[in-house]
Amino acid sequence: MNHRRYVILAPGKFAVDAKTAHGVIAYGEDDVVAVIDHDGAGKRVRDVLPYLDSDAPIVGTVEEALAYHPTSLLIGTAPIGGALPNAWRNEILRAIRAKLEIVSGLHDMLGEDDEFVKAARTSGTQIWDVRKPPATPIFSGAVYDVKAPIMLMVGNDCAVGKMTVALELARAVREAGKSAAFVPTGQTGIMIAGWGISIDRVIADFAPGATEALVLEAAMRNPDMIIVEGQGAINHPAYAPVTLALMYGAAPDALVLVADPTRPSVEGYNTPTLGYRELIRLHEALLATVKPARVAGIALNTRRLDDADARAEIERAKAETGLPADDVVRFGPQALYAAIAPSLHKERPCVA
Amino acid sequence: MNHRRYVILAPGKFAVDAKTAHGVIAYGEDDVVAVIDHDGAGKRVRDVLPYLDSDAPIVGTVEEALAYHPTSLLIGTAPIGGALPNAWRNEILRAIRAKLEIVSGLHDMLGEDDEFVKAARTSGTQIWDVRKPPATPIFSGAVYDVKAPIMLMVGNDCAVGKMTVALELARAVREAGKSAAFVPTGQTGIMIAGWGISIDRVIADFAPGATEALVLEAAMRNPDMIIVEGQGAINHPAYAPVTLALMYGAAPDALVLVADPTRPSVEGYNTPTLGYRELIRLHEALLATVKPARVAGIALNTRRLDDADARAEIERAKAETGLPADDVVRFGPQALYAAIAPSLHKERPCVA
Repeated sequence: MNHRRYVILAPGKFAVDAKTAHGVIAYGEDDVVAVIDHDGAGKRVRDVLPYLDSDAPIVGTVEEALAYHPTSLLIGTAPIGGALPNAWRNEILRAIRAKLEIVSGLHDMLGEDDEFVKAARTSGTQIWDVRKPPATPIFSGAVYDVKAPIMLMVGNDCAVGKMTVALELARAVREAGKSAAFVPTGQTGIMIAGWGISIDRVIADFAPGATEALVLEAAMRNPDMIIVEGQGAINHPAYAPVTLALMYGAAPDALVLVADPTRPSVEGYNTPTLGYRELIRLHEALLATVKPARVAGIALNTRRLDDADARAEIERAKAETGLPADDVVRFGPQALYAAIAPSLHKERPCVA
Repeated sequence: MNHRRYVILAPGKFAVDAKTAHGVIAYGEDDVVAVIDHDGAGKRVRDVLPYLDSDAPIVGTVEEALAYHPTSLLIGTAPIGGALPNAWRNEILRAIRAKLEIVSGLHDMLGEDDEFVKAARTSGTQIWDVRKPPATPIFSGAVYDVKAPIMLMVGNDCAVGKMTVALELARAVREAGKSAAFVPTGQTGIMIAGWGISIDRVIADFAPGATEALVLEAAMRNPDMIIVEGQGAINHPAYAPVTLALMYGAAPDALVLVADPTRPSVEGYNTPTLGYRELIRLHEALLATVKPARVAGIALNTRRLDDADARAEIERAKAETGLPADDVVRFGPQALYAAIAPSLHKERPCVA
């Protein structure tokens, strides 16, 4: 679809637990024309979440949302308990009957649900399960010939802001008069950019190849810079294989380390998060043997700190690592980008 | 199935390209009662491959093999070109009609082939696609409570003998009067042991959890030692995520480094294989931040070297690393096991 006009389905959840919806509103290439959440019905997005700065109305039902001429229904938040309640099911069916495209980030594939499939066939519309990976080849090394410098986000944990930093840096590149291609590797990134692959859902053997395919696709637009969304963390006991798949598959020329300094352990585990220097050492040591790349800068997520503590932590990161550091959400991405830009150059892969 | 009597299907390939078949004959828990390969028909396995030391007859068809009372047909080698030729298809159908279980290591799932499924239903037999992973949970950390020491094989490349070393070390443990559980993580290992999961076919997010589930299953037999088959290599541009999934998922207490010293680059890529010390550094650095484990010894694959060169390479590995080293196929696993056994003790996971 060329340009979407989204209505976002988030009953009872828009203000409290709809990270994907917020990301699509803040950074999406497509328009959000309405949000469905009976809790905020009658208000506008801006009234509920001022930082999103969006006029889109909040309504109670798909029926009401149709007045704003949407092309697509976006389901970016899972219902409580995981299973699809009847109320959601009925709203989705209503949207299908109104010929809206369905774009879903749920784990359960709507495109494998008999009732939805039948309804979509009848009304001639599509269901796009963004988590469902396409068949992809084994990693080939073709990514080593990409001309633009490739930056990859890595982090000290999941959900520390790797996608946001990638999007903010892409903005800084564009503001500096160059073109940047953002490469989405997870569901929110995919919904924001309208393409991509959820690398964590790819069969392990094919995960680097799927990442490589994404970078090659981005390279076809001849951008000045390719910025790849990161996933997981290199010492995350469950998700590190996805992190490593991105590192070898994207074959970056530089890494940006995204870290929440207030997180003592990896979310959901007792495994300690690592310090800046250990993170830098591990990532650089792995890449050094395949496709060398250095950590070019540190993007801190200081949302749990006040301004003074945030600045102190940024100074501490700089002093400890000798690298540029900043919080690109709190202070804007321009300074960090300007500081790392001179160090961005193509790195050759290791060859036996 | 309690105990299988296998007939192995390998038309035109048994002597030349049937690594899985050879592994099952050499190490399998089940019996191999016949091999189907018109090329060697009339001979015995021993006549064609002396080192396998098996009496099993080679016959031309499933029909002839039935005389040896098989319970199961094993397809451990892919047909040339990948697609299933009619001759193979007919033999498989013949086996299904004779009520043999079908055990397949092919990429294409026989259990998703309409003709085979229908035939199996009619004759009341099973199709086991060993590459097809079951649904497995996300890594939980339950493996940290396993009482037996856990050893994991890691390597300098794919196909250097990680499975063979694991099986040989398990034999040495048993010969030393203790019990050992071998944990299969790839198709040949699965066929040999009769259980397991092809970790490379698991969705990336679930690969450590699938590995953990295997180790927990092995631990239920209360073995003195758990020995986990390895996969890939930590700097393999395509398969390293599987290697890392095994490292974090199996939560080993010790690693055994399996290396072919004659291999300059990773199979199929220009990426250089790493030296012993760099391999040790990388594996230990990654595990040090999650569940510390040291490389306890080096198992060299010296099949491309003569006896003198093999011994020289073993001495070089010892001198370079200060670790025990040997070729467990050429010289037996007892000496290496005796050398590493004193260093095997439980290592606690990192805790924040």
